[in-house]
Amino acid sequence: MKVHKAIITAAGKNQHTLPLQSLVAPDGISKSALAILLDEVTQAGIDEIAVVICPGDEAAFAEAAGIHARQVTFIEQTEALGYGHAVHCAADFTGDDPFLLMVCDHLYLSRVEKSCTAQLLETAARENCSVSAVQATHESKLPLYGTIGGRRIAGSDLLYQVETVIEKPTPTEAEQKLVIPGLRAGNYLCYFGIHVLTPEVMKTLGAQLAAGNRADLSLALCDIARREQYIAHELEGRRHDIGMRYGLLSAQLALGLAGKDRDEVLTHIVEVLAQSHA
Amino acid sequence: MKVHKAIITAAGKNQHTLPLQSLVAPDGISKSALAILLDEVTQAGIDEIAVVICPGDEAAFAEAAGIHARQVTFIEQTEALGYGHAVHCAADFTGDDPFLLMVCDHLYLSRVEKSCTAQLLETAARENCSVSAVQATHESKLPLYGTIGGRRIAGSDLLYQVETVIEKPTPTEAEQKLVIPGLRAGNYLCYFGIHVLTPEVMKTLGAQLAAGNRADLSLALCDIARREQYIAHELEGRRHDIGMRYGLLSAQLALGLAGKDRDEVLTHIVEVLAQSHA
Repeated sequence: MKVHKAIITAAGKNQHTLPLQSLVAPDGISKSALAILLDEVTQAGIDEIAVVICPGDEAAFAEAAGIHARQVTFIEQTEALGYGHAVHCAADFTGDDPFLLMVCDHLYLSRVEKSCTAQLLETAARENCSVSAVQATHESKLPLYGTIGGRRIAGSDLLYQVETVIEKPTPTEAEQKLVIPGLRAGNYLCYFGIHVLTPEVMKTLGAQLAAGNRADLSLALCDIARREQYIAHELEGRRHDIGMRYGLLSAQLALGLAGKDRDEVLTHIVEVLAQSHA
Repeated sequence: MKVHKAIITAAGKNQHTLPLQSLVAPDGISKSALAILLDEVTQAGIDEIAVVICPGDEAAFAEAAGIHARQVTFIEQTEALGYGHAVHCAADFTGDDPFLLMVCDHLYLSRVEKSCTAQLLETAARENCSVSAVQATHESKLPLYGTIGGRRIAGSDLLYQVETVIEKPTPTEAEQKLVIPGLRAGNYLCYFGIHVLTPEVMKTLGAQLAAGNRADLSLALCDIARREQYIAHELEGRRHDIGMRYGLLSAQLALGLAGKDRDEVLTHIVEVLAQSHA
């Protein structure tokens, strides 16, 4: 399944300024968080990107998109009807095509040569189905994430057959329905914030809305798991949630230490530590 | 000289998104760089603040001003005619009153109980004249700053009588005109980015413009030094230029290590270092 389109959601009122935050990217250039995401997406071979935004944010986002602005279509979510609805705002953009889906408040740092996005797209191309990035997550953090249940695919360390999806499960639900054989006790596979999805997922969101319900991506993915092959991929990388307190600091430290400016960043750390007093 | 008004300039095209950058303030709350500046200004007793902005930026800046939005008057610099002109855009706002003047791309961290702004306002109140914050700066950085010449005021470690001002002096100019007796060799007193100024300074900028010239703050201050008492104050604190590469990182590290979150910030540093590879 070859993917040419991406949706990045950035319409949440609490996070709509996060993509505009400035960081020094691993290439040493200061750019917005949005531009860093767009670098990763375009370098992975995606050439059409829809960014779903709050009304009124287009000018600031177009500036933040930098050199990628021409590849980006901005779509306003005119009513604050939640995340699933924001994704569905791009239904006309994706049409009958599969698409990469990312949130705007995370930055990803791969542990290997290929970016997190490239790892996921490669799996989707090979397996020809929807693939969601996941990471093993301690049960104490279940209230934050969509979580999958399923089983490891034989012969693979990092791929799982998804059988069910529950958004923010309780510990009891998780223990009953989401235990993955082979994972460390008390750990579950939670969404990482990147998906490659078939057009069926978009249709399922549309059907939820047509039925007068809230569009709910986790429910739609649970539905897909019953009807199609659907895989979870434990990526070789880390995500940095830049919406958390000190999330930007951690992301910037990680990006800086991973890139060509490692020594410069270490110097900044030591200088500031030397000047600070307990 | 008691000061009730402040001007913050944020209209430079290269820096107009800097005040919107999000940092965790020393009080542990995530807020914009603009809100951190406004905290410092209002806590020092200023209650009316004009922020000079690029056309179109008001909505984003009003959101970034947070709890201080009601104290802020936004003034658009409709033509990009430089820094002195941006200051003069607030001439009607300051009228015949003295004013605090700050740039938007620096954050200040005091080494003592009183903030940098409070230190400067206290000196202006006591000495009843214009006062500019300065710091001893190595001659290699002269191309970046306005630099003063003068002499230390007897009986004070930190106050200087300003006799002349040169914007971005050459090393030769500096050696001929700006050497301050008592300062370490090769060091000069450069502007720190905060001033308390008499209404005469605003009038001088207006006279420059009326004569068809560019408004030039350093020239205006040089003029003031000849006509009025004008003092430079070496503040007990550091500035962080958030417009530099890794400037936001250094500022966030310094703010975090200075506040109640010191241990949390140290933990973030160690965690990211542990996960990173050379």
